[in-house]
Amino acid sequence: MMNYSLGKGDLENWVVSDTAFSPDTLGKTESIMYLGNGYMGLRSTTEEPYLNETRNLLVSGTFNKFSEEEVTELPNVADITRLDIRVDGEHFSLELGKVEQYKKQLNLQTAELIRTFDWTSPSGKKLRFHFRRFVSLDDMHLIGMKINVESLTDDVQISFDSGINAQLTNTGSQHFHEGEKRIFNKRYIQLVQSTIESNIDVVLNTMHQIKINGIDVKEEPVMNMERRKVWVTHDFTLRPNDHLEVEKLSTVYTSRDKEFDKPDYTLDNLRKHSLNELKRSFEKGYEALFQSHKGAWKKKVWDVYDFEVNSEDPFDQLSLRFALYHLTAMTPAHDERMGIAAKALSGEGYKGHSFWDTELFILPFFTYSNPKVAKSLLKYRYHGLAGARKKATASGYEGAMYPWEAAWPTDGEVTPVWGAVDIITGEQTKIWSGFIEQHISSDIAFAVYQYYKVTGDQDFMDKYGYEMVFDTARFWISRLEWDEEKQEYHINDVIGPDEYKEHVNNNAFTNYMAHFNIKLAIFYYDKLKTENPKLLEELRDLLDLEKAYKKWKSKLTQIYLPKPREEDSVIPQDDSYLQLKKLDLTKYKQADKVGTLFSEYNLEQVNQMQITKQADVMILLYLLEQTENVFSKEIKKANFDYYEPKTTHDSSLSLSTHAIMANDLGKSELAYSLFRKASEIDLGPTMNSSDEGIHAASIGGIWQAAVFGFAGIRLIEGKLKINPSLPKHWKNMKFTINWKGQPISITITNAKLTIIPLHDKKIIFEVFGEDYETNKQMEIKLGSSQTITF
Amino acid sequence: MMNYSLGKGDLENWVVSDTAFSPDTLGKTESIMYLGNGYMGLRSTTEEPYLNETRNLLVSGTFNKFSEEEVTELPNVADITRLDIRVDGEHFSLELGKVEQYKKQLNLQTAELIRTFDWTSPSGKKLRFHFRRFVSLDDMHLIGMKINVESLTDDVQISFDSGINAQLTNTGSQHFHEGEKRIFNKRYIQLVQSTIESNIDVVLNTMHQIKINGIDVKEEPVMNMERRKVWVTHDFTLRPNDHLEVEKLSTVYTSRDKEFDKPDYTLDNLRKHSLNELKRSFEKGYEALFQSHKGAWKKKVWDVYDFEVNSEDPFDQLSLRFALYHLTAMTPAHDERMGIAAKALSGEGYKGHSFWDTELFILPFFTYSNPKVAKSLLKYRYHGLAGARKKATASGYEGAMYPWEAAWPTDGEVTPVWGAVDIITGEQTKIWSGFIEQHISSDIAFAVYQYYKVTGDQDFMDKYGYEMVFDTARFWISRLEWDEEKQEYHINDVIGPDEYKEHVNNNAFTNYMAHFNIKLAIFYYDKLKTENPKLLEELRDLLDLEKAYKKWKSKLTQIYLPKPREEDSVIPQDDSYLQLKKLDLTKYKQADKVGTLFSEYNLEQVNQMQITKQADVMILLYLLEQTENVFSKEIKKANFDYYEPKTTHDSSLSLSTHAIMANDLGKSELAYSLFRKASEIDLGPTMNSSDEGIHAASIGGIWQAAVFGFAGIRLIEGKLKINPSLPKHWKNMKFTINWKGQPISITITNAKLTIIPLHDKKIIFEVFGEDYETNKQMEIKLGSSQTITF
Repeated sequence: MMNYSLGKGDLENWVVSDTAFSPDTLGKTESIMYLGNGYMGLRSTTEEPYLNETRNLLVSGTFNKFSEEEVTELPNVADITRLDIRVDGEHFSLELGKVEQYKKQLNLQTAELIRTFDWTSPSGKKLRFHFRRFVSLDDMHLIGMKINVESLTDDVQISFDSGINAQLTNTGSQHFHEGEKRIFNKRYIQLVQSTIESNIDVVLNTMHQIKINGIDVKEEPVMNMERRKVWVTHDFTLRPNDHLEVEKLSTVYTSRDKEFDKPDYTLDNLRKHSLNELKRSFEKGYEALFQSHKGAWKKKVWDVYDFEVNSEDPFDQLSLRFALYHLTAMTPAHDERMGIAAKALSGEGYKGHSFWDTELFILPFFTYSNPKVAKSLLKYRYHGLAGARKKATASGYEGAMYPWEAAWPTDGEVTPVWGAVDIITGEQTKIWSGFIEQHISSDIAFAVYQYYKVTGDQDFMDKYGYEMVFDTARFWISRLEWDEEKQEYHINDVIGPDEYKEHVNNNAFTNYMAHFNIKLAIFYYDKLKTENPKLLEELRDLLDLEKAYKKWKSKLTQIYLPKPREEDSVIPQDDSYLQLKKLDLTKYKQADKVGTLFSEYNLEQVNQMQITKQADVMILLYLLEQTENVFSKEIKKANFDYYEPKTTHDSSLSLSTHAIMANDLGKSELAYSLFRKASEIDLGPTMNSSDEGIHAASIGGIWQAAVFGFAGIRLIEGKLKINPSLPKHWKNMKFTINWKGQPISITITNAKLTIIPLHDKKIIFEVFGEDYETNKQMEIKLGSSQTITF
Repeated sequence: MMNYSLGKGDLENWVVSDTAFSPDTLGKTESIMYLGNGYMGLRSTTEEPYLNETRNLLVSGTFNKFSEEEVTELPNVADITRLDIRVDGEHFSLELGKVEQYKKQLNLQTAELIRTFDWTSPSGKKLRFHFRRFVSLDDMHLIGMKINVESLTDDVQISFDSGINAQLTNTGSQHFHEGEKRIFNKRYIQLVQSTIESNIDVVLNTMHQIKINGIDVKEEPVMNMERRKVWVTHDFTLRPNDHLEVEKLSTVYTSRDKEFDKPDYTLDNLRKHSLNELKRSFEKGYEALFQSHKGAWKKKVWDVYDFEVNSEDPFDQLSLRFALYHLTAMTPAHDERMGIAAKALSGEGYKGHSFWDTELFILPFFTYSNPKVAKSLLKYRYHGLAGARKKATASGYEGAMYPWEAAWPTDGEVTPVWGAVDIITGEQTKIWSGFIEQHISSDIAFAVYQYYKVTGDQDFMDKYGYEMVFDTARFWISRLEWDEEKQEYHINDVIGPDEYKEHVNNNAFTNYMAHFNIKLAIFYYDKLKTENPKLLEELRDLLDLEKAYKKWKSKLTQIYLPKPREEDSVIPQDDSYLQLKKLDLTKYKQADKVGTLFSEYNLEQVNQMQITKQADVMILLYLLEQTENVFSKEIKKANFDYYEPKTTHDSSLSLSTHAIMANDLGKSELAYSLFRKASEIDLGPTMNSSDEGIHAASIGGIWQAAVFGFAGIRLIEGKLKINPSLPKHWKNMKFTINWKGQPISITITNAKLTIIPLHDKKIIFEVFGEDYETNKQMEIKLGSSQTITF
């Protein structure tokens, strides 16, 4: 049973708690409480093993392909968390005996996982257990664990096996060679793994520091080695009230680490260095290391984003902290060769691949709140031009055709080809996204545009941004198909954001965004011509721009952009959608898990009905208003009212966009309820939906629904607009965003908006149609008259 | 808790039972109750999963190498046994709720695994479960399972997931590509796996037939697919006294099957054929298929070997039946390209490799009892000449140097290089056997000699046997090292049968057996010269025999053969052994598991002491008497008394040889106690010693201790000798052996020996020094006067 806040005082609204152990729903807390620092993610699997557990340690960027038949994925690195504990010779498990006072908690503030309980063994001996764990934000290679056990009633014999286990796979696929195992000085355990295809070395080191009643235990453990596994066995007798304390410190290094990925790399150096670092950490001990880690979270996260929500329901504050926690844990901010995985670093789902999820749902948070990280993420896509050009060439197009799923930047397309069972034929369903879900290229161009507008980072544009926009525009121009009859350019046989419509023609989102991408390229070309002709010349040579520019200019206006229907202002999602038959989705939308539709229909059948998986026309309207504000509120409303009831929200990307749109349309209650639903995708009571990992985009969406929705922050026609509309039971919200290089503190109550440019530099912004300008704190009165109603 | 006989009547001494479920000792019954038919071995893991289970399905000959760094091994094929059962939504496990009347039983006679119990769920609902399972001896591709569930008290909702799961690995190494998965007609489930290096396709098919109260359930199950996994979910409500019956039939086929391993092979054919066969079996149903299987065991096993022991302790009868059961289950009699694995087909231990275990401990059973199978096993070694020649060449020798561990015949040496942890250095110990444990080549030559003597199979010799003996002799001649000082040939830097002595010079066993091998080659050469000069000429051309023969003749007498010491008649195990320091082994020999020595000493230290792992000089004396009877009983006794106390019996190969020797030396009580200990290696109460699989050689040794020991059957100077000496509480024993192509029934009591040549052909044999001849039943009185005492 999950609950979400703990006690009072410092910890209030900082703690995610599970207060009842269930062996059938382990995945929930394993995922949503996972620990990460962008370098690695450690699933919060319990120390003692259970049958249905998933034990994952994922290190950003260490992609490997099991075989030519599979796609590359983040391999599951060896485990250092498992402890096989025996009490009086019987294995310890919460399924056996009696458990009292159970708590498993993630403290978001300190990014520490804590688990405590009293356990009475089947033979009646009572013990108190206390587990702690962190993945350091201060030293990205370090994992700290601390275990305290107290015997409450009897003499007990307690023993445990602990070490490094590399027998794990990714659901059966083994990515590693069995490497060398070694125990140094009967204490320091080292295991090497090397990926079988990408040849990345991973070195794990671990060690134990053991005390009973505060006194170091000197006895040497029994050493053990098996295939892909090395561990020690410790054995103690505890008398009543004896305290056993075990600190287990581990380090993880790989040859993909920036400091090792160099021509002079040797495995030997990596082994020595990583072991030495462990020894250095050992000198400090768990508590000191934990303090450094906690300090890093304060300095790098909580002080920077400074996000407060004062709601009648403390869940809202918690869910925003939960979002900030995970946005930090999931992001490989240390290395621009790496992107954000769709399930973060919390599980094997989606194989560690990056989707448009990053650019549309996560990147905006960093663009507005931490532009340095946003830049690193966009540079990942810049490096990804290599893979995108590869894909374009292979597909018979020009320029940069970004892969629907991306792994290592040079990999190109890595979407798997086969998916779930087809309930009619019994065959596996083919996944078409890697072939025909093509809007990702313009999504990335949009992200560049947004980043530039918000940050004004000219250096980024000169070095990376223009090239990305030009080369995606080149792709789109080559992608257009001339329709002789209608005398216009079509984009046929695609999947739009709504993945329940495969092989459609002229998906509105795809066409409009391609149009935007090309138009942006023309605009930048013209801009460079006057502002930086030297750079334009370089890019012209590199990308054959002269020819491209001519095509952009000549074809742009001939691209077919589906217009709202005269009778009801509905924009056709694609050429055929509005002609399909309809289905009442009520029961599927009310189901407590997503995708229930597919227990009754197969994808081919769903393809033939007016059923939308997620925001499609909606997200188009939301994005376009940040560029040209093409559509009126009436059209937005008409489309919201038409499409929302036909949308299952089976994608976690759907709810936050709808929340923002609902807010814009003055549907405050609906907006708040959609925000809550978005928050509950991972943090809610559904116990199995996060099994394969958290929903990274949905977590970015929590922040977006709050900042773009309730606070009404928006980039429209290049201006910062702030049109707040707090949910009625929110007293205030406070946060810091960056605008043109300056952090700006924003506080919103129902009565007023307070803006503080923290670097005392002038900012220009608009609130409900009024323009403002200031270089110091400014308060703007908000009144009911300024509320937009519809 | 294990016990070993059930009730009275037909089942008496036929059933191995476990009457108390323990989640910590699952490996015991998984291994010793495993089901096999030589084609495949299915570990008897329970249907419902447990944390410490090992779920294995191994198919003979399907070797694959995970990577260049690993050695080839039998891959763990996808599982079809697991059922995830839920009762009222909670997962079913014997660790939870209450279990009564628990029995897990292997019926040796019918080769059926049975498990029954009543289970009360944590919420108080009582159910009766009955599981049955067999691996057909009639159709080697077929696995049958049957599950009965009865609700005893309440309405219960029962559901289960069942299908094919290919996520399994060999302790982390994945040998298979993920192949196609398919469900046909919502019923027939098919999964394809292909090995990643050896390119063997495996196709598994499975289906369910479900009845409630005898009436077919028509509801379609929910179909599911995941990575490497396909399954269906069934869901029922049972009212009190409702009977649920599930038959699950499965077929396993591979492209290595003889009938498919042909140029016209296609995966498509294999898939179609295997699915059709499943459908054919489905028409018959579990009961009819089981009857055919049971009939095959009667006809092919129990009627043929006709083994009876009448002992005061019924365990003795059971353990011989257990041996015959496993000797049948482990042996790929259907395919001469395949050998017997050291852990049979019962687990991943020793990777499915064949050792000298086959030739010295298992083959004699077949040579005497089922020569057709013996011939197939020897032909496996004949095909293995390819690998043996490869190894000789790679090692700088001539002829055929058999690999210490063998897999596919052409593979050559496949012994892994790294073993357990060195408790002093913390490094992995290097395994030297693959490099320097070389006696395997003469062990195989000895097996050829024995097979020929016992069966008189001239055709085998002409086609295969001579070539094997000549080419191993060529190896040995090239292996000899000239000692200038002593003017003799040495064999230095080897490991003998005692693997606790690495890098020794002139191991007595190795030198004597090499000498035997060369001498045998000379003898056969001379024999062929007169009897079959045409064949000799062919072999001469093939093996450059003229040159070889000259070397054999000139060097044979110069090979150093360690002689018994004058002072105590002890034959030095090697050049240094008798000079090493001694250690009292009492506590290690009494330990309830093997290898306890290594928790206190590392191998380097054990190397430096008079500690022997297993019969070494002992087995030499035992083998030699079957050739030339070189050593007197006095010398045998002196060596037994010297070496046995220094022998830890850490190898399961040790006890049966010592049992035979003890019997020869008139140490009847000791012989019986060693026989019992050998039987108890797998069948005894130690719960963890069989975790990685049963001990195939030890199981062959049970039969050897009975037939070569108590019945005193021996091939000496080419004659069949029978010198019986029953343990004092055995009333009689009866068995059938083959001699020169004729089955001979032998019955022994304390008073008389009864011999029946079943084909009425004349046999010549010797009993306690007296020669006999008969072509019909003959009885020979045995008296105390004929007992040899010492």
